[in-house]
Amino acid sequence: MGRKVKEIEGGVCAPEGFVAAAASCGIKNPDVERLDLALIYSQYPTVGAAVFTQNEVCAAPVRLSSSYLKSAEPRAIIVNSGNANACTGHGGVVHARTMASTTAKALGLNQREVQICSTGIIGVPLPIERIEPKIGGLAESLSRNSEPAAEAIMTSDTKPKSVAVTVKIGDKKVKIGAIAKGSGMINPHMATMLCFITTDAAVTKAELVAATREAVDMSFNRISVDGDMSTNDTVVVMANHQAGNKTITRSGTGSSEFREALTEVMQCLARKIVSDGERVTKLVEIQVRGAASQLDAERVARAVANSKLVKCSWNGNDPNWGRVIHAVGYSGARVKEELVDIYFDGVLATQNGVAAKTDIGKLSAAVKDSEFTVGIDLNLGKGEFNVWSSDLSPEYVEFNREEYALNRKTTKR
Amino acid sequence: MGRKVKEIEGGVCAPEGFVAAAASCGIKNPDVERLDLALIYSQYPTVGAAVFTQNEVCAAPVRLSSSYLKSAEPRAIIVNSGNANACTGHGGVVHARTMASTTAKALGLNQREVQICSTGIIGVPLPIERIEPKIGGLAESLSRNSEPAAEAIMTSDTKPKSVAVTVKIGDKKVKIGAIAKGSGMINPHMATMLCFITTDAAVTKAELVAATREAVDMSFNRISVDGDMSTNDTVVVMANHQAGNKTITRSGTGSSEFREALTEVMQCLARKIVSDGERVTKLVEIQVRGAASQLDAERVARAVANSKLVKCSWNGNDPNWGRVIHAVGYSGARVKEELVDIYFDGVLATQNGVAAKTDIGKLSAAVKDSEFTVGIDLNLGKGEFNVWSSDLSPEYVEFNREEYALNRKTTKR
Repeated sequence: MGRKVKEIEGGVCAPEGFVAAAASCGIKNPDVERLDLALIYSQYPTVGAAVFTQNEVCAAPVRLSSSYLKSAEPRAIIVNSGNANACTGHGGVVHARTMASTTAKALGLNQREVQICSTGIIGVPLPIERIEPKIGGLAESLSRNSEPAAEAIMTSDTKPKSVAVTVKIGDKKVKIGAIAKGSGMINPHMATMLCFITTDAAVTKAELVAATREAVDMSFNRISVDGDMSTNDTVVVMANHQAGNKTITRSGTGSSEFREALTEVMQCLARKIVSDGERVTKLVEIQVRGAASQLDAERVARAVANSKLVKCSWNGNDPNWGRVIHAVGYSGARVKEELVDIYFDGVLATQNGVAAKTDIGKLSAAVKDSEFTVGIDLNLGKGEFNVWSSDLSPEYVEFNREEYALNRKTTKR
Repeated sequence: MGRKVKEIEGGVCAPEGFVAAAASCGIKNPDVERLDLALIYSQYPTVGAAVFTQNEVCAAPVRLSSSYLKSAEPRAIIVNSGNANACTGHGGVVHARTMASTTAKALGLNQREVQICSTGIIGVPLPIERIEPKIGGLAESLSRNSEPAAEAIMTSDTKPKSVAVTVKIGDKKVKIGAIAKGSGMINPHMATMLCFITTDAAVTKAELVAATREAVDMSFNRISVDGDMSTNDTVVVMANHQAGNKTITRSGTGSSEFREALTEVMQCLARKIVSDGERVTKLVEIQVRGAASQLDAERVARAVANSKLVKCSWNGNDPNWGRVIHAVGYSGARVKEELVDIYFDGVLATQNGVAAKTDIGKLSAAVKDSEFTVGIDLNLGKGEFNVWSSDLSPEYVEFNREEYALNRKTTKR
């Protein structure tokens, strides 16, 4: 965290006026007791912003939430795990609308003030009959404890992901809290990742939308676990003006502090998502510099971050710069091979496109940690870009071999 | 094979006037005896055509061969496995030139009439001192047996890859022979793949260049094992006019038969390369139709062929159409989710974007074979494209974990 931004406790309920709750519906399997439905609610009016998946095939809840946000500010978010309600046709839209209307009724809201999210398997009908009856009780159990909600949105995540910060804006302390889930399908342009952010900042709608867009670009759009893009990715931010600060506007005071804090919150969760990716053992930051343009730097960073062969080598603690430079070569960026330098965690592996004289033991040591950097200097210009990536493990493949057939058998009963 | 094209024996030496040989130099490891140097030679003057890697980082032999081909027709191809001579700086260029000049001297050719190819690890200096002394003996042992050469160019291939065909052009039988190697880094726009093709056809240079380009686009540019693109990919074709046919020209008689035969030869080898990809258990043909344009169809086919999650599901015999449709969604093509149909080996899995009523057992059976098709109909237009892909196995990842460190240790001795 930067100097102006301090981490605090409380997760998504840390900011004033936000409460949350979770329940167990047996969505994935009626015989297994686990939290799989969460509700987040602002006790005060808000302005909201959201970023949704860019996948052309997107889930019913994504379409509905996006449409609701065009004509109303969000006061509540209802989320289920265990089923993505994607590729479920008209029935899926009906189910998403039922989740919204039931939540709205329980909280005395307009249906359009509810954002709806689902995460889990694609193509299996949502068991709405197990979800709908639980929503009333969920609304009654809202509290300042954000932990059950963080747990309920998990799918193959191994840990709940939550963070909260405080940042001084003028003479007031503003809080930002968040929960997220990630795991499979983590990719640039977002992933099967959900992130819900609350803040008590007073902020204009325009500034919140711009700040959210920018923070997503600096965080969730720079992570890559397996190069796939989900049908359900969603980031929702609600701001309820309870901190008493002078309203933050696009070019006014407080904007830079607020954006910095929001970006740090999202980057913190982005890193947690990558390092908790399915069967991931390494968090690797690709740092590209010296590119002819920022776009070229981004091309290089993403090509390296998504190369299966590069990711395999990280899993084996192998300082294989040959695979890195070949991904640099096919990235589409302007590259002069004889100028390329590559570093593993700061240790020079490649100088001017050929093996540096660094001892192989030193290079192997540099890639042994569970977190390291890969620095790539194209020595052509000033373009820079960074991406957080992970290794690819045999266990990842094993884990992802048989989801659909197994789930069809489970849900058919 | 089509009706006009018949498969025959003899590989790259099947056409009149072509001979080959192989030798063991201990390039990867001086203590291990295996064939790792091959020579192919035309006893008569030729015209030649070649397609090289599009990777910006390309190996010294690729640069040299490409430059030679601009001013001379190729009479010989010298190839080593075990070391790619890529990212090896000026020393690499000197070594590639030595391979060419030594071969030329042994055969009484001009240096520019030799094509040079290397395949294997990137970034390790080529042990030219173990290769150069073997070239003289190689030239003396040239024969009509193509099998040793097919074996010598293998890296992690498990089988040699060779094919030969005959096709009637006018009243003459023309032969085309070929050997290839593939395995890791197999990708659209070619791979660490080498393919050497010989033909006794009489054909103009212009027609040979155009036919080669077209056949590569219909074959090697449509395969995908791991989405990486190598620094060394090369296809070289030599035609020596010994069949006695009327010279084939771009629009003259025989052109369509010749192109069909050349395309079938390359497609046959392309399929062999995919199914022998590193630790591959499935050969999957993605057949896209109904796209708004051919480019859109290609985008969809490549997105599905390269999705790690889709490839994992094939490894597990999982008919996971949800992952297929989500890759369709992020491909960049125009997609109407509610129109998409997906078939596994002809069995309907997805109709109008949602699960078809097909029994899950039937779907699972459809993806159980070592070869099957995935049909995707976007129902939007007439664009079609097909790609050959493979599954992604835990064994692939294990196999690719530690190459560089191990090889550095081996080659340092």
